[in-house]
Amino acid sequence: MKKIALLGATGSIGTNTVDVVLAYPERFQIVSLTFHSNSDKGAQLIEQLKPQYVGVGSQAMKTDLASRFPEVEFGVGETGLVKAATLEAVDVVLTAVTGSVGLNPTMAAIDAGKNIALANKETLVMAGQWVMAAALKKNVTILPVDSEHSAIFQCLQGQKEGSVKELVITASGGSFRDLTREELESVTLEQALKHPNWSMGKKITIDSSTMMNKGLEVIEAHWLFGTDYDKIKVVLHKESIVHSMIVLKDGAYLAQLGPSDMREPIQYALTYPTRLPIKNEKKFDLTEIGQLNFEPMDFDRFPMLALAFTVGKKGGAYPTVYNAANEIAATAFIEGKISYLQIEQLVQRAVDNYSETTEVTLTEVIEIDKQTRTIVERWIKEEGQL
Amino acid sequence: MKKIALLGATGSIGTNTVDVVLAYPERFQIVSLTFHSNSDKGAQLIEQLKPQYVGVGSQAMKTDLASRFPEVEFGVGETGLVKAATLEAVDVVLTAVTGSVGLNPTMAAIDAGKNIALANKETLVMAGQWVMAAALKKNVTILPVDSEHSAIFQCLQGQKEGSVKELVITASGGSFRDLTREELESVTLEQALKHPNWSMGKKITIDSSTMMNKGLEVIEAHWLFGTDYDKIKVVLHKESIVHSMIVLKDGAYLAQLGPSDMREPIQYALTYPTRLPIKNEKKFDLTEIGQLNFEPMDFDRFPMLALAFTVGKKGGAYPTVYNAANEIAATAFIEGKISYLQIEQLVQRAVDNYSETTEVTLTEVIEIDKQTRTIVERWIKEEGQL
Repeated sequence: MKKIALLGATGSIGTNTVDVVLAYPERFQIVSLTFHSNSDKGAQLIEQLKPQYVGVGSQAMKTDLASRFPEVEFGVGETGLVKAATLEAVDVVLTAVTGSVGLNPTMAAIDAGKNIALANKETLVMAGQWVMAAALKKNVTILPVDSEHSAIFQCLQGQKEGSVKELVITASGGSFRDLTREELESVTLEQALKHPNWSMGKKITIDSSTMMNKGLEVIEAHWLFGTDYDKIKVVLHKESIVHSMIVLKDGAYLAQLGPSDMREPIQYALTYPTRLPIKNEKKFDLTEIGQLNFEPMDFDRFPMLALAFTVGKKGGAYPTVYNAANEIAATAFIEGKISYLQIEQLVQRAVDNYSETTEVTLTEVIEIDKQTRTIVERWIKEEGQL
Repeated sequence: MKKIALLGATGSIGTNTVDVVLAYPERFQIVSLTFHSNSDKGAQLIEQLKPQYVGVGSQAMKTDLASRFPEVEFGVGETGLVKAATLEAVDVVLTAVTGSVGLNPTMAAIDAGKNIALANKETLVMAGQWVMAAALKKNVTILPVDSEHSAIFQCLQGQKEGSVKELVITASGGSFRDLTREELESVTLEQALKHPNWSMGKKITIDSSTMMNKGLEVIEAHWLFGTDYDKIKVVLHKESIVHSMIVLKDGAYLAQLGPSDMREPIQYALTYPTRLPIKNEKKFDLTEIGQLNFEPMDFDRFPMLALAFTVGKKGGAYPTVYNAANEIAATAFIEGKISYLQIEQLVQRAVDNYSETTEVTLTEVIEIDKQTRTIVERWIKEEGQL
């Protein structure tokens, strides 16, 4: 029985994880879970999964739920996340929270010797060097849950050290892939939220359309697989069938493909290195899909992707600034405070505004993350529609 | 230094193998080689590679070449093939001969404990159960060289026992893939020899167009990977970029792709489990190719492929009859003795004509192979254009 801490249980990845766990009740058990604000769905999960420990977003939620579930222990905020992730009984922590809030509980879980199934990009984007070093020291496995990284991880199985030449991350191009930059000026939130292939949360759908999401994935892949940025390629593949590829030294490509179903990478992270059937698996017939298209990535069209390589190569806190600015800007767009193109402008401005002269510590990175958020929030307030 | 016996050195696979060996002279050495009839190219290879032992197709060739290369030992016919394959110095035997002649030297090499890099389909088609049992007993590795089987073998690396659901072999469809069965009635040898993607020998190019080649690959895959026929699928993929795929238990596909360059699977068989760069590697850019197409296989259009599954499932000497009849028929077509569609008619007739009631031995299979050839040759003679 694999005992799981599920951080971010009510989100898109969280819901898919619950599906996987419930499909194999004799193999998986969720012993702790957290959710931020969706109290109704959270309460339903508590009833269904009977976890020992639950972390919630506010004291009020804790008070309410504690009275309804007296047998469960509750915690609030970051303390709750860390406690859920480090509970004695936990074997593996599935980090499905969105944003930089994923970092601390993941680090705490690694320190406690828990394996990590990582769906939170920001953890590696902000703190890749520290997270990977801690995992190595504690002999902890970090298993990717993102479909792209899981695809690469799956292709890498059985490959000898040093036999990989490049990673090729595929990108659907998001909701606006067929629009020019001029056409992007007037797009609405509603349009942005229509992702062509995946049904996901709002923030990640916006990040897909700006290619910020792909940028974060590039940085994440750098840390996860120890691959130089020059050896990470991104190709436009509008069908999202090939989830990513690796290129081997002899020129052979290995690709992982399949339906757009997050249960596959989630389940693989939980069953690795073996595999189990996906219950009620989505129909997938390559001959029915018929055609897979691959186009070169246009870095002028998607400046946030180009910027990911820039901040990635600079290292230090640059990726943190890139990510923090985007978290604030994308949220501001979702809240109707700024226009679509202002997301990119704010991220670019935050990166331009930042300069780093000496090596930073993890504590400093976390501080820079906060500062960047404050600065970008101030810019949004000061300048209104900029 | 890996010491190689190269059987069939002057053919298409042989030539590509020589390229691979000459690209890494510090790693590979051809200590023995054989060729059947191309004396000029053979002599050139002897000069270039300085093998210890050379097997040739006729006594006259032996006499001629022995006088020119007194330092080399020569042998003739099957004796020469067996000697070349079992030479003390040999580490791995690359069997690149065409047809059933590959069987005996491969069996002898396995008995002598040599690893096998197998490019000869007929060995497993005729004698899969005996070859695989002998390899297991002698702890000998059989590495596929065919691009499809190498692709599957590459995808299978690192997969846990029991995690594979299906194999998906891709088929280009050969030179006549866009013709209807009616249009096939009048096609010429010249048209048949124009393979859209691969430059290969005549026999295998004809076999590609009739899908006999794919049929032999299905049977070969059955033995090589121990996969039930029901779990071997064939899809039409006209670009020949995806060389084949595997489907895992959780629905994920792994695919191996790359340029149409036989040096890759040959070199992988020689460097396995590591990889080396291909010298002067062919340019390969998936975004330039742009599009990969997959279509369901039409078994009515390609009856020889349907027949492969039938004879494969029947087992015993059925695949041998299927293969032997085709060797004679395809050769007769190449020699202008029969029409294109008569190839299929003769193979079907030979299979229909054969019946097996008791379990056969390997000796009997070899006898049935000879009988089938005699019968099909007689049919061709008796009936002329049938």
